[in-house]
Amino acid sequence: MPRHLVVGAAQLGPIARHEPRAEVVTRMIWLLEQAAGRGCSLVVYPELALTTFFPRWFMPDQAEIDTFFETAMPNATTAPLFERAKELGLGLSFGYAEKTVVDGKVHRYNTSIIVDGSGEIVHRYHKIHLPGHHEHEAWRAFQHLEKRYFEPGEAPFAPVEVFDGQIGLAICNDRRWPETYREHALRGTEMVLIGYNTPVHYPPAPEHDHLQCFHNHLSLQAGAYQNGMWVVGVAKAGKEEGCDLIGQSCIVAPTGEIVAQASTLGDELITADCDLDRCAEIRTNIFDFKKHRRPEMYPLLSAKV
Amino acid sequence: MPRHLVVGAAQLGPIARHEPRAEVVTRMIWLLEQAAGRGCSLVVYPELALTTFFPRWFMPDQAEIDTFFETAMPNATTAPLFERAKELGLGLSFGYAEKTVVDGKVHRYNTSIIVDGSGEIVHRYHKIHLPGHHEHEAWRAFQHLEKRYFEPGEAPFAPVEVFDGQIGLAICNDRRWPETYREHALRGTEMVLIGYNTPVHYPPAPEHDHLQCFHNHLSLQAGAYQNGMWVVGVAKAGKEEGCDLIGQSCIVAPTGEIVAQASTLGDELITADCDLDRCAEIRTNIFDFKKHRRPEMYPLLSAKV
Repeated sequence: MPRHLVVGAAQLGPIARHEPRAEVVTRMIWLLEQAAGRGCSLVVYPELALTTFFPRWFMPDQAEIDTFFETAMPNATTAPLFERAKELGLGLSFGYAEKTVVDGKVHRYNTSIIVDGSGEIVHRYHKIHLPGHHEHEAWRAFQHLEKRYFEPGEAPFAPVEVFDGQIGLAICNDRRWPETYREHALRGTEMVLIGYNTPVHYPPAPEHDHLQCFHNHLSLQAGAYQNGMWVVGVAKAGKEEGCDLIGQSCIVAPTGEIVAQASTLGDELITADCDLDRCAEIRTNIFDFKKHRRPEMYPLLSAKV
Repeated sequence: MPRHLVVGAAQLGPIARHEPRAEVVTRMIWLLEQAAGRGCSLVVYPELALTTFFPRWFMPDQAEIDTFFETAMPNATTAPLFERAKELGLGLSFGYAEKTVVDGKVHRYNTSIIVDGSGEIVHRYHKIHLPGHHEHEAWRAFQHLEKRYFEPGEAPFAPVEVFDGQIGLAICNDRRWPETYREHALRGTEMVLIGYNTPVHYPPAPEHDHLQCFHNHLSLQAGAYQNGMWVVGVAKAGKEEGCDLIGQSCIVAPTGEIVAQASTLGDELITADCDLDRCAEIRTNIFDFKKHRRPEMYPLLSAKV
């Protein structure tokens, strides 16, 4: 039986700081319904899909920071998205800021989930590579306080079996690290879903701003090819609260080829019919890990150095 | 003091099976003299630069195989290259098939060396990722018997301090593995020199033949960007004994940008002025390993799985 998964990458345009989540959910449902009409089984939205990218502001008041977090999922605001997806039999993946209490201790994560076609959350991932900085840095045009507002995830990358395949998650900065894709691939991931919010301007090295789009695709395409894996990259794009975010949402085949790409910086759905069996074209050949990898020659990769 | 290294990537066109090594050395010296005239301090030649790519033939007779190997370096045939380089004060790097005896045991490696401006061999590397197969496979249009003819290298990737920088080596198939660049970068390599022989046709997956050039640059550029490292990729190119080899020799900046590229499939020199201090633009920012890597989240990368 061929394992074809028709995927929609649902890019979102900017979300204003005070835009109600219910309005965002309405936009997400609009994209969801397009996806249903185009034969998708899975719709993928960006990182922190429900709100503006709030780590760009230093907020001394934790109560204010917490207004951007969800304490339950689904919740009253996102329920219509879950319900509509279930009616249509569509799976979902999106990112959000998660506040959770475990054994009396509060945790805050940059989270992404996979929801199957019956509305069940079947996988939850906490972002491993938190970029940016921890303290307020006044010299920056805007902040990038992910290291302050979130704890890093503590569970390695791994897929879940759903949609007749091995599907995995990563978030934004994770996609720049070859380790992300390799850990996934060594555990059998066939498709990785990666939402992102990427400013054009990178304050510590503005001399590379003109390369942001190039680096985005370079990382996604190399990750796909070098692991024989489908990669779905989904942007929050456009000018959000004065900050320009790149778009370029794309679906990348296990050959590294971009097979679908967004051409706007707004809400836009792109789709591709992904044959999960094509991973084998790469993994049983040039990147047959068992035959060709030399892990004993990579002692530093897993080591604290 | 700025650390600018002007590098020449000296692509070689095809070498016939019975072409005398002395003729190849004459071609290499011709490229060397061009490099001197263009201000180079280091000239980089391909993998197995002195002979045709002999692993494409199954040879049952070890004595015949050994005709492609060098038992000393330099030797009578390569001495003119070493001497001319020394006269010009130029460093060299090239690959060759090395047969060596250690404690009475014969070893055969796919080797690459770095020669400093005084003619001394300052670094020797044995290829870690040997592609291809071990037994004769008659169904192939041509063989790829590296796993049969060579032992794999047993020393991890590491740079040598020379040319006022940290310079490292990798060979051909190594460049497809992100582990190669990362192990180098974690040991401080600022520039990696990579010769290759890459057929357009890959017998186990001919459906990807049209992507060979794309995969070549994708791997080299991702390795450069994701490690903030200069990458010098040098091909043996053109139709060699009926086998089409890709060209596309290139010099890649730590930003992943190709700053020089060959435009023929023959003997051709390309050059670039490489500022080794530019590695820091990437390594102290987006890929600040100490700040952002999470090695405890990559348990499988160094593990036998």
